[in-house]
Amino acid sequence: MNHAPRLAARRVGIDTFRENVAYLHRECPIVRAEGFIALAKIDLSVNGDGRDISAVLNVVDDERIVAPSEIGLSEQAFEQLGAPEGTQIAIAHAEPPASLHCLHRKIAGERLVRDEWMAIVADIAQRRYSKIELAAFVVACSQFELDRDEVAHLTEAMTAAGRKLDWQERPVVDKHCIGGIPGNRTSMLVVPIVAAHGMLIPKTSSRAITSPAGTADTMEVLATVELGFDRLAEIAHQLRGCLACGSVAELSPADDVLISVERPLRLDSPGQMVASILSKKRASGSTHMVLDIPVGPSAKVRSMSEAQRLKKLFEYVSRHVGMTLDAVITDGRQPIGNGIGPVLEARDVMQVLSGDPAGPNDLRQKALRLAGRVIEFDPDVRGGDGFGIARDILDSGRALQKMNEIIDAQGRRQDVPPLGRLTLDVLAGRDGFVEAIDNLEIATIARLAGAPKVSGAGVDLFRKLGDRVRADDVLYRIYADYPADLEFARRMSDRFSAYRIGDKEPSPHAFVEF
Amino acid sequence: MNHAPRLAARRVGIDTFRENVAYLHRECPIVRAEGFIALAKIDLSVNGDGRDISAVLNVVDDERIVAPSEIGLSEQAFEQLGAPEGTQIAIAHAEPPASLHCLHRKIAGERLVRDEWMAIVADIAQRRYSKIELAAFVVACSQFELDRDEVAHLTEAMTAAGRKLDWQERPVVDKHCIGGIPGNRTSMLVVPIVAAHGMLIPKTSSRAITSPAGTADTMEVLATVELGFDRLAEIAHQLRGCLACGSVAELSPADDVLISVERPLRLDSPGQMVASILSKKRASGSTHMVLDIPVGPSAKVRSMSEAQRLKKLFEYVSRHVGMTLDAVITDGRQPIGNGIGPVLEARDVMQVLSGDPAGPNDLRQKALRLAGRVIEFDPDVRGGDGFGIARDILDSGRALQKMNEIIDAQGRRQDVPPLGRLTLDVLAGRDGFVEAIDNLEIATIARLAGAPKVSGAGVDLFRKLGDRVRADDVLYRIYADYPADLEFARRMSDRFSAYRIGDKEPSPHAFVEF
Repeated sequence: MNHAPRLAARRVGIDTFRENVAYLHRECPIVRAEGFIALAKIDLSVNGDGRDISAVLNVVDDERIVAPSEIGLSEQAFEQLGAPEGTQIAIAHAEPPASLHCLHRKIAGERLVRDEWMAIVADIAQRRYSKIELAAFVVACSQFELDRDEVAHLTEAMTAAGRKLDWQERPVVDKHCIGGIPGNRTSMLVVPIVAAHGMLIPKTSSRAITSPAGTADTMEVLATVELGFDRLAEIAHQLRGCLACGSVAELSPADDVLISVERPLRLDSPGQMVASILSKKRASGSTHMVLDIPVGPSAKVRSMSEAQRLKKLFEYVSRHVGMTLDAVITDGRQPIGNGIGPVLEARDVMQVLSGDPAGPNDLRQKALRLAGRVIEFDPDVRGGDGFGIARDILDSGRALQKMNEIIDAQGRRQDVPPLGRLTLDVLAGRDGFVEAIDNLEIATIARLAGAPKVSGAGVDLFRKLGDRVRADDVLYRIYADYPADLEFARRMSDRFSAYRIGDKEPSPHAFVEF
Repeated sequence: MNHAPRLAARRVGIDTFRENVAYLHRECPIVRAEGFIALAKIDLSVNGDGRDISAVLNVVDDERIVAPSEIGLSEQAFEQLGAPEGTQIAIAHAEPPASLHCLHRKIAGERLVRDEWMAIVADIAQRRYSKIELAAFVVACSQFELDRDEVAHLTEAMTAAGRKLDWQERPVVDKHCIGGIPGNRTSMLVVPIVAAHGMLIPKTSSRAITSPAGTADTMEVLATVELGFDRLAEIAHQLRGCLACGSVAELSPADDVLISVERPLRLDSPGQMVASILSKKRASGSTHMVLDIPVGPSAKVRSMSEAQRLKKLFEYVSRHVGMTLDAVITDGRQPIGNGIGPVLEARDVMQVLSGDPAGPNDLRQKALRLAGRVIEFDPDVRGGDGFGIARDILDSGRALQKMNEIIDAQGRRQDVPPLGRLTLDVLAGRDGFVEAIDNLEIATIARLAGAPKVSGAGVDLFRKLGDRVRADDVLYRIYADYPADLEFARRMSDRFSAYRIGDKEPSPHAFVEF
């Protein structure tokens, strides 16, 4: 690129979410001379001796955004390039990402080998794929199901592309849920119980992407969660546990980029789910993990056979990357606990920890079972003893004490956010029994109400599966802070209330038990 | 959307190429309250009683681009919304396109029925799909090959989504090539020959998308090609032919949108190619068409069996949509003619029309054969007589005369653009024979030199397949107008010259003959 033309860099204050965009004026000599057109990809370089970053081109007709002598860069592109405004940037037609022929082989339905996965993931992590190419990759991987070795190589490649934490001891235990069940905040109970037992459980969680609250969002109601790695390690080593926010961008940068197309496409194929979860867990240094796979008609996994297949895939790949995995299939027919949304879920968790009889028993039971399985990773614990140990720790108050230590160490929040100021009660409308609760619909109502961005927003469930209701009973209460949010949530609940009320008392059989 | 919040419309001078983008300031109350995030989709409406357009959201941090009280719209979105700046626009979370469940069925590998294709194509034509969703659709359709009924329904849906021209007579004949062969400008010979024979051939072509010149780009060197439909019809009825620029956006709006992702992905699956070509031809009112399918190692179709399969698919679908089709498989091993780029190709065409012995004979022969097949659609012409009739028309000068009439009627260009001012000769480098010419590489060199945007830019071939060369013979000359363009083309030709020179004289067998 020694002779490549140059233009002065300018930061354009547009957030293009994980995609580098460059803005060139239509009258810019380079656009005119080189036939660049909108959506073309260009390579940018500060030294002119290669490619620092690639970007998608938007052509601009307004000099206030970018002048003909400048190259505008979206916030992401400017940050990634890392040069100050005014730097002369060399510009060239983009060399296609080196792995593009592998992508085309995958689109054609071929099986890729390890090196090809490595090449694709490295290009994705370095943001060399456009959104269109990312979407093509995600769809291609979901259409012809990846075989288990391909998933193993994808996982390995995604781990290799990021930073890997080292805890200097083992086992390092963890607990993870594949998601999809609102209110399922078991991590905030499992971590203090397991840490109180003495095992190292440095839990890093992400914020909600499509759900009304992630563990990081809920923990943030109580304490600081954005900790640097050094501080996080210090707390974890001292207290045996923490509940912090993990940076996906750091631990699995390829996953961070892929999410930007998987989310709007609502695609979450088994291969990509396994690679995404295990690459992040491997990178965060976990050696042993209990995995929660909820099954239910509105859960991510809808049948027991599908759950069994997914479990086997997780087991195969975790062995490949050297992790010990205990995957459990759980009841995903309805939300866990009562509250949905950061403040409401934090309330449920603290009620269970403090032994408050108002605390939701389903959350308590599930957390004890999962904590028990984690505790059984301890070589000194006999198989089957975990649940009892966990229950003793919880009931003795040691888990609450541990939680308070963790909150204080991370930084107790002084201005605990209140519940939303506006409320709306949704009534049963008829006498009968709660026959079904739709996880997706109730999550959508909570999100429209403002969760997780507005931490006091969400939904509080007053009735659960099998409960008898009268027409004027409140099924759930919506909390919001802004009238427009409440209005969106109200209109959604008018159309899809998430509850089905029927005449028959459902038989109270245990759907799954572990 | 009666209670939907409103913001003042503002045109943002950014060209986002077939994708509606809305820009909202991060501090805008709607972004803050409703948890809109970058890449979310929103619905916009002027009256607040539905959705006028959907747009992808970019979040902005610069008030000079958009203020917190405004909603910025990319040029495409502003134009499609059709309201003046300052109009109060109602904004809501996007209702997903109604056909999204059909897209998910296709991603899952299901066979779609006619109504589902109609629903998808209508949403695409109305720009309700984001780029990511479009990419997902294109990949899903290319992975599990569409069956021929699906292709027929897709074609029908794409035709139905646009305007349909009516010529008030039949047959209306046409000639089309699936593309991929540089210099292949036979339409500019076929049209005057067939029109001189008296058949109606109102040819509309598109500009180059990925090639160094389309028929519209080349014709524009000689005459105006942007004619309204009324003027075009007047000329065609009077002269029996025309060579105008067709608006894909009008005739097949869904195709116009799909191209915006197919092009960067370089995906052109058989089903989508057939639907794209036949929907446009059907919409342009053609009743009979000769289709050119070139086969060669660097052509779009690389083997005879692949060509035969594609031919059958074209035949099946054209019958479904009520068109008479004659598909011919042609020699696609190298470029046709000598010039590649608008001015150079126009030169070749005019040389052949005027009987100049310097004119390329391969272009002449191919055009005569194709014109002959079109002429045989005439019920009064005996099978096999077409070629002779076409040759007589060309050699008698009647085709040249017809071409001049068409040029004058469309508007003869007074300022015929010159050849590029800068040239570079690429030499053979060794003695031997031309064993291969790569269509894609030579096209890339011509594009880097500036074609088709710079109409005098391109490549002039001095040697073709089988020619004996000495080391210092010129293989081809690159023409450019800008030093940077010439430099790009030079670097490309240094790496990939497009020519393979070997020791063996290739046997001069006819690769395909029709």
